[in-house]
Amino acid sequence: MDKPPIGFVGLGIMGLPMAGHILDAGYPLTVYNRTRSKAEELGARGGKVADSPADVAAASTVIITIVSDSPDVEEVVAGPQGVMERISEDSVVIDMSTISPEVERQLDEQLRAKGCTLVDAPVSGGDVGARNATLAIMAGGDRAAFDRVQPILEVMGKTITYCGPVGNGQLTKLSNQILVAVTLLGVSEAVTFAKKNGLDAQVMIEAVKGGAAGSWQLSNLGPKIVDRDFAPGFMVDLIQKDLRLVLEAGAAGQVALPGTSMVNQLFRMAEAQGDGREGTQILAKAVEQLAGLGS
Amino acid sequence: MDKPPIGFVGLGIMGLPMAGHILDAGYPLTVYNRTRSKAEELGARGGKVADSPADVAAASTVIITIVSDSPDVEEVVAGPQGVMERISEDSVVIDMSTISPEVERQLDEQLRAKGCTLVDAPVSGGDVGARNATLAIMAGGDRAAFDRVQPILEVMGKTITYCGPVGNGQLTKLSNQILVAVTLLGVSEAVTFAKKNGLDAQVMIEAVKGGAAGSWQLSNLGPKIVDRDFAPGFMVDLIQKDLRLVLEAGAAGQVALPGTSMVNQLFRMAEAQGDGREGTQILAKAVEQLAGLGS
Repeated sequence: MDKPPIGFVGLGIMGLPMAGHILDAGYPLTVYNRTRSKAEELGARGGKVADSPADVAAASTVIITIVSDSPDVEEVVAGPQGVMERISEDSVVIDMSTISPEVERQLDEQLRAKGCTLVDAPVSGGDVGARNATLAIMAGGDRAAFDRVQPILEVMGKTITYCGPVGNGQLTKLSNQILVAVTLLGVSEAVTFAKKNGLDAQVMIEAVKGGAAGSWQLSNLGPKIVDRDFAPGFMVDLIQKDLRLVLEAGAAGQVALPGTSMVNQLFRMAEAQGDGREGTQILAKAVEQLAGLGS
Repeated sequence: MDKPPIGFVGLGIMGLPMAGHILDAGYPLTVYNRTRSKAEELGARGGKVADSPADVAAASTVIITIVSDSPDVEEVVAGPQGVMERISEDSVVIDMSTISPEVERQLDEQLRAKGCTLVDAPVSGGDVGARNATLAIMAGGDRAAFDRVQPILEVMGKTITYCGPVGNGQLTKLSNQILVAVTLLGVSEAVTFAKKNGLDAQVMIEAVKGGAAGSWQLSNLGPKIVDRDFAPGFMVDLIQKDLRLVLEAGAAGQVALPGTSMVNQLFRMAEAQGDGREGTQILAKAVEQLAGLGS
């Protein structure tokens, strides 16, 4: 099968390496980024550099977007000079940003009026996963559209899951973020409890991580909490954006999420102290402050 | 080195198979259990059956106890006909129950007055771990006493960790229970969020469990929640006992544990509905009820 011409909008810390994999896999690629220098890195490797998302769409039948938040996706897809201005019939837009499921559904409806469709396909795995093409990709949308773009997703990720109709990729990603946030609360409370009671918290982690208490958060962020290493793998500001989306979807769907809501509030303590660009493991500092352990 | 005569008090769902491993490893064993028939099972395999914890102590230099709660340990160690009545100098008591760290320290002090010492060594891994000798054992106490009994602990468990002075085994086990409880809250909220938003929750779990959202609780209890399988691996009544110990130790040590406390309250909903003997995964039912998902 011929490789379709692909467009890529958004060359940030995630998008740039992801677009690079597509180029390396031999797809014709047209890219756009607000900061043009990032686009020119790919231009030097054989990609075409476009002047707008609309120009990207004109050159492509599959258009990938990965930007920050719901309004950014709305702007690059449906705004002035956006993808929809020049998209050709039967094209697929794959939005890989983490945004509102409801916004994805609305954009899909607008795209359908032009004979196109949207697949929402947010990712987890961070910048390391983007560079190594080991991302988990959670996709929602029309099944036939998913099947058509699956080989392209496989170039960027390792675990590709079809989750149902459009919006379900985002809902799966938001479920992922609930798990990340509340599990990290448990790690923060356990490490704080251990330290305040005079345990060597690192010994505690080693003693329990192989059993029913074990988690990715404990094995990977627990030792950083113990070492006071708050360098970001994933930043507070970004998980807060995701938790806002979770709690908005929870409000819309009438789901009470008391643990998630509590973590959102504790992260707000971190933000209030200027720690929004630290790693999520700084949640432990808020828990320690509740326990009077100082900063 | 000669195998010391071992005493074993408490032959419940955990103690019976643990004592059996000690017998199989060739140690002389004397056992006591309130319900004598359990002791006679081991009597038929070569163990001696004693009439009281005091008689167990008279025949042993290492005495293992594993009973339900702090008052039970106090009774079998320091009560009438208890271990301390007939213990000989230089013996070690290993308490493998999950109880108050403070009670372990008090019992250790009483034992020291008789030239003996206490190692607190609670376990995790459940009845399956007890049967297969794959328990994680978290030990606190005098280092020399720990070194002396370590070969005996290795007969019953796979991961044996020395956690520091007496009481630290319990504090490590309580840290483990904080992690178990709060991680399970995250799993319960994520599955409820997924279901109420129309996702196939099993697909969601498969999509995310390999990444930063992953945990033992998600992989093992998540699918049971989806299947409405509330059969106990670990019962609500038992984790509530442990969370009470956690919150008591938190109060004594001035550690605020908002997530753990919330889970304790949600389990209380389950207890109030007569679900105390169901598995801990029934926490999800309480979360669903908050979300109006019915029973």
